[in-house]
Amino acid sequence: MEQGWRGVEIVEVGPRDGLQNEKRVLPTAVKVAYVERAIAAGLTRIEVAAFARPDRVPQMADAEEVLRGVPRSADVRYVALVLNGRGLDRALALEDARPHEINYVVVASDEFSRRNQGVSTADSLKAFRSVADRARDAGFFVTLTVAAAFGCPFTGPVSVDRVRSIVEDAGPVDEICLADTIGVGVPVQVSELADAVRPVAPGAPLRAHFHNTRNTGYANAMAAVASGFTALDASIGGIGGCPFAPAATGNIATEDLAYLLRQSRVPSGVDVAAAAAAGLWIGAELGLAQVPAQLGRAGDFPGDL
Amino acid sequence: MEQGWRGVEIVEVGPRDGLQNEKRVLPTAVKVAYVERAIAAGLTRIEVAAFARPDRVPQMADAEEVLRGVPRSADVRYVALVLNGRGLDRALALEDARPHEINYVVVASDEFSRRNQGVSTADSLKAFRSVADRARDAGFFVTLTVAAAFGCPFTGPVSVDRVRSIVEDAGPVDEICLADTIGVGVPVQVSELADAVRPVAPGAPLRAHFHNTRNTGYANAMAAVASGFTALDASIGGIGGCPFAPAATGNIATEDLAYLLRQSRVPSGVDVAAAAAAGLWIGAELGLAQVPAQLGRAGDFPGDL
Repeated sequence: MEQGWRGVEIVEVGPRDGLQNEKRVLPTAVKVAYVERAIAAGLTRIEVAAFARPDRVPQMADAEEVLRGVPRSADVRYVALVLNGRGLDRALALEDARPHEINYVVVASDEFSRRNQGVSTADSLKAFRSVADRARDAGFFVTLTVAAAFGCPFTGPVSVDRVRSIVEDAGPVDEICLADTIGVGVPVQVSELADAVRPVAPGAPLRAHFHNTRNTGYANAMAAVASGFTALDASIGGIGGCPFAPAATGNIATEDLAYLLRQSRVPSGVDVAAAAAAGLWIGAELGLAQVPAQLGRAGDFPGDL
Repeated sequence: MEQGWRGVEIVEVGPRDGLQNEKRVLPTAVKVAYVERAIAAGLTRIEVAAFARPDRVPQMADAEEVLRGVPRSADVRYVALVLNGRGLDRALALEDARPHEINYVVVASDEFSRRNQGVSTADSLKAFRSVADRARDAGFFVTLTVAAAFGCPFTGPVSVDRVRSIVEDAGPVDEICLADTIGVGVPVQVSELADAVRPVAPGAPLRAHFHNTRNTGYANAMAAVASGFTALDASIGGIGGCPFAPAATGNIATEDLAYLLRQSRVPSGVDVAAAAAAGLWIGAELGLAQVPAQLGRAGDFPGDL
């Protein structure tokens, strides 16, 4: 982001967190087209792949092909999700088709961490330190996402202290993302988590990741803006969810978030109409009756009056 | 509301604004059952009928039967929507089955007012003064709703000055409701409208009415709480919309709002689980594949872990 920028960066996570959690597995060419539509709508930081086990996450099996297929320019940064050292090895092996960023996920509750990644939170963090050091040596921008930071579907509330100590133990990182993976959080948690995490990660910008499972996602996004978060994850169409979390639904939608921010006079650089059109398009590609995003159906305002 | 109450009152509008805008016309007995379920979930102020022309709004044709059918107790207040003097006459004629409150609607833009009520905003306001005086003399609590206060589907933005002058011209009223009838508003408008309206209606409590058409409704609700609004309209199930406004969708959902408020430590007196169950029930009665409310599908949190 340029100095003096007073807006919020929307990180497009539809090609990863969105598509990963839809039933239909899309061909690589459609994924690349989704990324191209995101870029045309003004998104400049896009999570396009996860280096996960293809047998567990077939939607992401073509991670390498997607990273080789997406257009490259100086204006666009690609992010790949990495869960362990093997994932980083796959990113490194891509040579000139590497992502720009590695997003590593640590799950805040042990139970969810074990079910999702097969290890405790502490072991996941230990692995992170090793991956992060290697990734930074290789020139990657390294972000840490604390998943289930607002609550765990299996064990309930997650304390602010727990999240703070995870961030503290993580060591140096280029950005910290606090994720409401199952969509249970509310605005007051956003500001409390920000206040708790900042002192133990001085200088690290904060990003937030919200799902709209209980209709709290957009209120949380506004709270994150007010709390000084510099970036917000969202998916075009609001697609996605989490197959490992009961009843989770999609990310907050890029087009609806861009509308909310624009009308609130907070620049995001995203073209609401282009993002809304892309949302309708990806919904059709996925065979969805309708996408969770509302802008495509409702229309922009003021629209063509 | 009791003195010292630090919460927000949720006004249940599903039986009126919700049902009025659903295709299926429900039998009176089902409407009464909807009201009973709302009461069981802790709602104490419920808009149950509109005195509109039965040929234009067949969903509300049984307004009198509903008001005669709903249970009466000292704890519950019923609201009826009135658009003109004829509507007030119908309310008065009900004798001991009268509503407790008259909610009169003035539409902020002339074009929308003409299409909706057949008169300009100024003529609608003039009629309001006459209706309001008669209604107060008859002992009704009289509230004024300024519809389309956040924008008009036909003419676009509505200025804060326009809304302020409507409230100023309205004269004495027991409560003012600012309504985002078509779901275009954002939080900054909520606080700006509150700041504009308060000086011209000193002492009148503020209520807000949001639709979630563009996923801004719950963020707006939180902004209204922060801006000192004392009541928020919502419908169990999030049902409803506006047949006179293109692409409008339902009210914010009572159960999702109650969840958001409870998790934010703002008391509303509403039982989230009971409201969510009622939302699923009314969706089935209306033959909807799913209701806009999310709590019924997602489940409370922490739920039964």
